[in-house]
Amino acid sequence: MRPFGRARDALREISLEAGVSVYAEGSCMARFGGTHVLCTASIEDSVPPWLRGGGKGWVTAEYGMLPRATHTRGRREAAAGKQSGRTQEIQRLIGRSLRAVVDLKALGERQITVDCDVIQADGGTRTAAITGAWVALKQATGYLIEEGLLKADPVHGQLAAISCGVIDGETRLDLEYEEDRRAAADANFVLTNTGGIVEIQATAEDKPIPESDFHELFALAKAGVTDLCAAQLAALKG
Amino acid sequence: MRPFGRARDALREISLEAGVSVYAEGSCMARFGGTHVLCTASIEDSVPPWLRGGGKGWVTAEYGMLPRATHTRGRREAAAGKQSGRTQEIQRLIGRSLRAVVDLKALGERQITVDCDVIQADGGTRTAAITGAWVALKQATGYLIEEGLLKADPVHGQLAAISCGVIDGETRLDLEYEEDRRAAADANFVLTNTGGIVEIQATAEDKPIPESDFHELFALAKAGVTDLCAAQLAALKG
Amino acid sequence: MRPFGRARDALREISLEAGVSVYAEGSCMARFGGTHVLCTASIEDSVPPWLRGGGKGWVTAEYGMLPRATHTRGRREAAAGKQSGRTQEIQRLIGRSLRAVVDLKALGERQITVDCDVIQADGGTRTAAITGAWVALKQATGYLIEEGLLKADPVHGQLAAISCGVIDGETRLDLEYEEDRRAAADANFVLTNTGGIVEIQATAEDKPIPESDFHELFALAKAGVTDLCAAQLAALKG
Amino acid sequence: MRPFGRARDALREISLEAGVSVYAEGSCMARFGGTHVLCTASIEDSVPPWLRGGGKGWVTAEYGMLPRATHTRGRREAAAGKQSGRTQEIQRLIGRSLRAVVDLKALGERQITVDCDVIQADGGTRTAAITGAWVALKQATGYLIEEGLLKADPVHGQLAAISCGVIDGETRLDLEYEEDRRAAADANFVLTNTGGIVEIQATAEDKPIPESDFHELFALAKAGVTDLCAAQLAALKG
Amino acid sequence: MRPFGRARDALREISLEAGVSVYAEGSCMARFGGTHVLCTASIEDSVPPWLRGGGKGWVTAEYGMLPRATHTRGRREAAAGKQSGRTQEIQRLIGRSLRAVVDLKALGERQITVDCDVIQADGGTRTAAITGAWVALKQATGYLIEEGLLKADPVHGQLAAISCGVIDGETRLDLEYEEDRRAAADANFVLTNTGGIVEIQATAEDKPIPESDFHELFALAKAGVTDLCAAQLAALKG
Amino acid sequence: MRPFGRARDALREISLEAGVSVYAEGSCMARFGGTHVLCTASIEDSVPPWLRGGGKGWVTAEYGMLPRATHTRGRREAAAGKQSGRTQEIQRLIGRSLRAVVDLKALGERQITVDCDVIQADGGTRTAAITGAWVALKQATGYLIEEGLLKADPVHGQLAAISCGVIDGETRLDLEYEEDRRAAADANFVLTNTGGIVEIQATAEDKPIPESDFHELFALAKAGVTDLCAAQLAALKG
Repeated sequence: MRPFGRARDALREISLEAGVSVYAEGSCMARFGGTHVLCTASIEDSVPPWLRGGGKGWVTAEYGMLPRATHTRGRREAAAGKQSGRTQEIQRLIGRSLRAVVDLKALGERQITVDCDVIQADGGTRTAAITGAWVALKQATGYLIEEGLLKADPVHGQLAAISCGVIDGETRLDLEYEEDRRAAADANFVLTNTGGIVEIQATAEDKPIPESDFHELFALAKAGVTDLCAAQLAALKG
Repeated sequence: MRPFGRARDALREISLEAGVSVYAEGSCMARFGGTHVLCTASIEDSVPPWLRGGGKGWVTAEYGMLPRATHTRGRREAAAGKQSGRTQEIQRLIGRSLRAVVDLKALGERQITVDCDVIQADGGTRTAAITGAWVALKQATGYLIEEGLLKADPVHGQLAAISCGVIDGETRLDLEYEEDRRAAADANFVLTNTGGIVEIQATAEDKPIPESDFHELFALAKAGVTDLCAAQLAALKG
Repeated sequence: MRPFGRARDALREISLEAGVSVYAEGSCMARFGGTHVLCTASIEDSVPPWLRGGGKGWVTAEYGMLPRATHTRGRREAAAGKQSGRTQEIQRLIGRSLRAVVDLKALGERQITVDCDVIQADGGTRTAAITGAWVALKQATGYLIEEGLLKADPVHGQLAAISCGVIDGETRLDLEYEEDRRAAADANFVLTNTGGIVEIQATAEDKPIPESDFHELFALAKAGVTDLCAAQLAALKG
Repeated sequence: MRPFGRARDALREISLEAGVSVYAEGSCMARFGGTHVLCTASIEDSVPPWLRGGGKGWVTAEYGMLPRATHTRGRREAAAGKQSGRTQEIQRLIGRSLRAVVDLKALGERQITVDCDVIQADGGTRTAAITGAWVALKQATGYLIEEGLLKADPVHGQLAAISCGVIDGETRLDLEYEEDRRAAADANFVLTNTGGIVEIQATAEDKPIPESDFHELFALAKAGVTDLCAAQLAALKG
Repeated sequence: MRPFGRARDALREISLEAGVSVYAEGSCMARFGGTHVLCTASIEDSVPPWLRGGGKGWVTAEYGMLPRATHTRGRREAAAGKQSGRTQEIQRLIGRSLRAVVDLKALGERQITVDCDVIQADGGTRTAAITGAWVALKQATGYLIEEGLLKADPVHGQLAAISCGVIDGETRLDLEYEEDRRAAADANFVLTNTGGIVEIQATAEDKPIPESDFHELFALAKAGVTDLCAAQLAALKG
Repeated sequence: MRPFGRARDALREISLEAGVSVYAEGSCMARFGGTHVLCTASIEDSVPPWLRGGGKGWVTAEYGMLPRATHTRGRREAAAGKQSGRTQEIQRLIGRSLRAVVDLKALGERQITVDCDVIQADGGTRTAAITGAWVALKQATGYLIEEGLLKADPVHGQLAAISCGVIDGETRLDLEYEEDRRAAADANFVLTNTGGIVEIQATAEDKPIPESDFHELFALAKAGVTDLCAAQLAALKG
């Protein structure tokens, strides 16, 4: 049995609240059950050095977690003096995913940085972050259009992300922390609303998993992403 | 005229919400107008190396700010690889202030770390942090008593903090960002509910200020702290 | 047409040379065409702090690239003062993959570190590294058995890795650098000799890819890994 | 009784020796009893990036301590790889204090960096540093005038600094190390020769102090600074 | 008796293989017995900031060692976050030595970086590195001439390096690791083919050595460098 | 002609002042003309981890330079976050030299750290540092004997250091900064009072130098060290 009697193909309670920041050009508080991620999109009028003068823009992401977002306090990365490998891996994933649905030429020579900060963590922080980041990004490009700085939206696709895993031989959607730590395998899927693949990361924990398990996880994820995409559109309509 | 027609001796709208974290032993979301600081108190069963075996506990604090807590995005300290001098100064101040009202011997050989993370910044983040940190700390020692780990509360005093400043020749209480950046002088007072001094930091920005200005700022702060202390007690009663 | 007239489902010339280091307990020079990775496995009699006293061992990996392994010189990470996000991502992947086929309890309280250093790079360095790392690891556990320190081999499975990608609408196996940089999507598969999934990482570069492309890539990878596993066994018999 | 029979309102033996460096544009060895701080002012023809092109200058300070300036050897910050929070707090204080008496516009687009290096420490290093730094700064602007680079002195005020504290219930001026470590509270005052306030930092160590104590400390400091200002002028006349 | 019955004035088996890298403008695998150093020379069209616009070029070197190049695994410097003092000392020596035989004006405003990476270490890595680096450098300037970018070779001299030491009272040429660690003194000589001195570093390990020992070491080194210079020319003729 | 009409074989004015620190167990201010280095020897009752429990002691050194010790201000290494390669090279040289005249077994399981801080620099800082460091070290071991912690002095030899160089074709002793920067070659000799060699570092700057030049430099250095050793003994008698 899953916690709270959840079905194996059910998402946790999902809440996407757009426009939560008074300063950021785009923002979204993404809540997947007990996982809360604050996503803000900030527009800057310059691009990284290697893009300057090329007329193309850039979309990137940073990820962080408050020290007591978790059951036991973790070390503050700013105090440790560096971001962990896990943090870097996640923020690279978020940025790469977003760029797959943005026309960087159409964005023009500006950068949008999406900060995803985990306020509370209960598993699936990276997928909540990506799902919320897309909403924040979309608000930010909407801002550019409203301000007359862009004519058309450079965001040409919609995406969301969800985790799945194999626990006690069962494939399940949207793992929470207690499930995640016991999972034999877990997989994160970043998919578009039309079923396109943006990123798949599947990892066996203790031993390899059969291909059939992977296909079950993929099917669960597709259904989950469809629901998340609907929630994103609702959040943007406000 | 101050923004929103506020009187020179008036606090902004104050909200102290205790117990906001599902994991931390103590927590408080402190809101001074548009400044929002999440304070969590985490108890650990070990103390720093220099205290080990001495039977004394330790209380310390860390401070951080989300990159887009401010009007324009600031660099993430974890990505920069170090905490700024300002950050270190503030977290040292918070920790030092809290220790002035804690009996470290009575706490026993354990450490309480109070994390103060600025979710949104509109001036006075360090004073909101101290005010909220005291609430989180108090909840955490309450937890130790409830759990039977302590008999008496090692927190022997109550304190809160507020900023004041001189703007256009006028002394004002609880500066917001737009006032703070134009202030000729600003001062942060950490005071107890009985008027005791825990810490005073007064700084002239462009030129020295007369002693009379300082005394006016002190008087404003004493009244402000009295109100904040009442709000703290209300939050703890919840 | 692929470089050198290679078929879309053909590996580059593969060479796995075991035992190349006079010092390391296990080693393998893995060459996938112009990509050359030196893998050494080093046994140490202690484990990381969080495992001490638990009777379990650990397998981990580190990855590096000589500054002029590539077309243009890259900055030396030791001089830069930190490992890039890419480096950390790759070394985490290598270690995680190896651990999926090792019984850490059976290994006993010792650590095996596999260093994968790219001497020359022409695409697919992470997959060559994993493929060579398994050989080096296997030699190292063989050494422990020969020395009478272990009775049975804690490596309970065989794995290898290969990259695939979509270029000009065509799915191809084992991309070299010139293909990799033009690929619309690429995927790295870490699979066992019996078709089990250890890790899948698929990434769309510019825009999402259809699910059918992914299945083609998967099929290419399975065939490639079968050949690599045969080469590994030949190298160990060497 | 204080060490050496000193009265509670007496400074230690003060020595300010200007022009001690053969290279620096301004310099002062400041000795407050056993505390010796070498202050050098260096003029550079450029300003930090955020000030460039604005016609304004900048005054900043750096602080350091030789490893064996103290009773027991401390770790060299350059070897540790970072400046401590205490060091950063002190150097920020010194720079901020000096800027309160300098017309940065009148200085023109150049920077003066005052290095304050503690050769020997016996309490009160930051106040000795500020007192000596003002002398070094004044020599440096004098140099700019002599060289015909400036017409008028951009230093428009005179300031000095002194510490006070409460020990065994008694308020005392200019604490030495053995007093400082036992003090119930200490306060650092940066004041002008005309009684203006530049910076006040008052800290209760173990428990809050009454307001009356603070006023006594303030009175002691005002008298002390008057004497220090006289010593500064004498040093500059040389 | 030396290992392998080597005479006290005999080099180990020397192998210099030029052109081993498919990418670098110059390269050499230098093998002194069990010590193998891969040297690559990379040409860049810019110089360090302090040389810009002066029409002069720069030659520099970086040194590294694979973690398991040695008997026991050493920590990876990129993971440690800094290069050791030993590494910096060696790379400064290599760069300085090479510059002593290069006309930097004649090189023009470009930089040649020689990377010396130790693949396997058995004593004398810095001398093998210098000897191989000269070959790589010479290939790189040859490349500039072939490409018509330079008319004459800016390398105006030939140099090589060798270590010597005092073991059990005997002076010996080209120490291997087991000798090096027992040596009472060791010395590294960088000399030209005509007997000119580029660099001498002689160090007594446990106690000072008599001048006569130093002269014996110098004589051994001169003979050794003559042989190494012949090997360099042979390698370049290929 | 040399500055101040100095003969080519003459030292600058040498001053060694022992016991200048009120805290350190040994200390010496070493002045070679305008080069002033403060050397302090600090005794600690523990040794580095790799020596623990072996009954042997350790002697090490650290080197630093105040930012404005030189003609133009240099960056503070503590602010830069690391020690330069030059600094590390020098402090390794100082420590290694001192250890060559100390019986580490006789010292017992304690460490002596000699800090050499350059207060003012005019060439030859490393040789002044070594010369002063020996005096500080000798005072520190004298302290251990006085305190009854050691019976015999573990310092079994006397050493000093001096630089020489070739300027305008002339070999000269004890270069000052203006000579050093124009020198075709320079060499640092660390020698004992009986002519033993502790360390020789000779470096050609622009082009190799003939062996005869090196022998002239060596002869100059021997005479210089004899005089420095006499000054050391005088300072210790003080």
